[in-house]
Amino acid sequence: MTREPIAILTAGLFDDHHAKTAHGVIRYGSRGIVAVVDERHAGRTAAEVVPFCARKVPIVASVADAAGRGARTLLVGLAPTGGKLDAGLRAGVVEAIEAGMDVEAGLHTLLRDDPELVARAERHGVELRDLRVGPDDLEVPGGDPPPAEVRVVHSVGSDCAIGKKVVTLELDRAARGFGRRSVYVPTGQTGIAIAGWGIAVDHLIADYVAGAAERLVREGAERGDVLFVEGQGALFHPAYSGVTLGLLHGARPDALVLAHKAGERTIQGRSDLPLPPLPELIAAYEAICRPIKAAPVVAVALNTSALHERDARAEIQRVERECGVPAGDVVRFGPEPILGAALGADG
Amino acid sequence: MTREPIAILTAGLFDDHHAKTAHGVIRYGSRGIVAVVDERHAGRTAAEVVPFCARKVPIVASVADAAGRGARTLLVGLAPTGGKLDAGLRAGVVEAIEAGMDVEAGLHTLLRDDPELVARAERHGVELRDLRVGPDDLEVPGGDPPPAEVRVVHSVGSDCAIGKKVVTLELDRAARGFGRRSVYVPTGQTGIAIAGWGIAVDHLIADYVAGAAERLVREGAERGDVLFVEGQGALFHPAYSGVTLGLLHGARPDALVLAHKAGERTIQGRSDLPLPPLPELIAAYEAICRPIKAAPVVAVALNTSALHERDARAEIQRVERECGVPAGDVVRFGPEPILGAALGADG
Repeated sequence: MTREPIAILTAGLFDDHHAKTAHGVIRYGSRGIVAVVDERHAGRTAAEVVPFCARKVPIVASVADAAGRGARTLLVGLAPTGGKLDAGLRAGVVEAIEAGMDVEAGLHTLLRDDPELVARAERHGVELRDLRVGPDDLEVPGGDPPPAEVRVVHSVGSDCAIGKKVVTLELDRAARGFGRRSVYVPTGQTGIAIAGWGIAVDHLIADYVAGAAERLVREGAERGDVLFVEGQGALFHPAYSGVTLGLLHGARPDALVLAHKAGERTIQGRSDLPLPPLPELIAAYEAICRPIKAAPVVAVALNTSALHERDARAEIQRVERECGVPAGDVVRFGPEPILGAALGADG
Repeated sequence: MTREPIAILTAGLFDDHHAKTAHGVIRYGSRGIVAVVDERHAGRTAAEVVPFCARKVPIVASVADAAGRGARTLLVGLAPTGGKLDAGLRAGVVEAIEAGMDVEAGLHTLLRDDPELVARAERHGVELRDLRVGPDDLEVPGGDPPPAEVRVVHSVGSDCAIGKKVVTLELDRAARGFGRRSVYVPTGQTGIAIAGWGIAVDHLIADYVAGAAERLVREGAERGDVLFVEGQGALFHPAYSGVTLGLLHGARPDALVLAHKAGERTIQGRSDLPLPPLPELIAAYEAICRPIKAAPVVAVALNTSALHERDARAEIQRVERECGVPAGDVVRFGPEPILGAALGADG
């Protein structure tokens, strides 16, 4: 385990959705954070740039500044498309190693596979930790169901990067607030950074994704009896649908919560790919689950951040009528209506 | 890319089912083959020992004999249980390297992880190629479609290990027989051994499966204008569905051929998981493709090996009525009806 406190490198993109790792760790994590390193936003606080990052973490211009504030670990806080370590990030990583800091990253490009970084880390006696690397003893799923008393709720999405993880974390937090033995089950590198356990399923050998999901549910069942399993990708995102489906079939959920960004009409970055209407999307998720394990979509979790409040409330009502299940924005209006549906009749 | 012609090492097991890689390469391969290396069967031809290997490839006693016939690459033609490189195979590999030949293998034991083999290969300037290992520069899909004049036909399945690869190979061979510029696009290690190119998608990092499929289609389009893309897994096989869907969405086929083993009622090894009726399975494959690219199931390729001939013909007719598309057994009764549907109206 790397040392605290940490600094989070976002390299000019702290206000971008690709900085979701940084945002998640600031918002939901429990580790000490002394700084965000982002030249473009330096001098402000995290909360000033991204209001929902409520902690007043200072943003500094350089890794050296963060080291000066006592940072012992640099966390790469970006998840760029494709997950490569680009030149800008790499320069920050090198600077951190030279300053005697451990480095954590959840990229596809592994720190451990970069001989120069490994050599530098050895020279400076610091640790390189790749959050995305899974256990080395994974198997295909065995097919054993989780204990019957455990309820598995899985967050799926209409698209990537629309807030599935936030929905999952908020529902778990709210369930615990209501006294439930609830567990957030992390399936990506940010979730692992936040919760301290989990498997980043998108970095596994493709054949082992479903087996990893089955193991996560089994491990989650040892920690509690309501499991909120974070989804990955989207069933109709052409780059990530395979991971989405492997996770879905491996986790064998009892219920699905569909996350959607209100107003979105196409897959992000793919204006040639219209999103199916929500009722069709719900039907598609339910149909693809059914032969393995029936799992109804019990609620729609809308991200209404692009709408004014009145429009957001109207959109939630419209979606409820259209889809016939409770809808809401867990961040803006609270998790209660969706949580009730997620917990089921005995919730 | 390793060099042609090739010799195939089977180390005394050419007539054994573990030599299926060798059999596939001889039966369906388009690469030049100068010899099988198998001391126990030396002096005969491949067809004399294994009749369905119709090519008259000579069987020789040693790698040196194969080198004397001009072999530039040695392919390990066995897939032994456990996938290890045993002492006999390893001796043949060493002899090939010493003779200046490239070496290809699809074993679990990677050639590149054997320091002595790597050192020898470097000394002799030859290539070691592990067929299960994908290229290291894969990306998520870019979304560029293949040229409009290229037709992509993708073989999908109701289950694993029912003959998708054979269907794909037979359709490609038949299309070439009809004068089409047809290409078999390999997505697994045996297919790569057969065709001499391709990517084993199930061993990739999960996030790169769709990008690999897109690349395979792009590379296939440089080789011909009818592409038969081998499928992997099955949409409702809980262990492999993620790979199936990543490949499907990445390849963006124009048409699907559904492979099914006649008489099967449940997923193999999972008697708790009934197979959906074929019309439902067809609808499910078409529905999961539609938002990315519409791809109708144009034919059902039945594996009727478990049925007597009369029952097989009756089952084919029943499936045609039930599904409303041509059906057939490409091995038993020839590929024509399915090929016509696969090539489309202008076929």
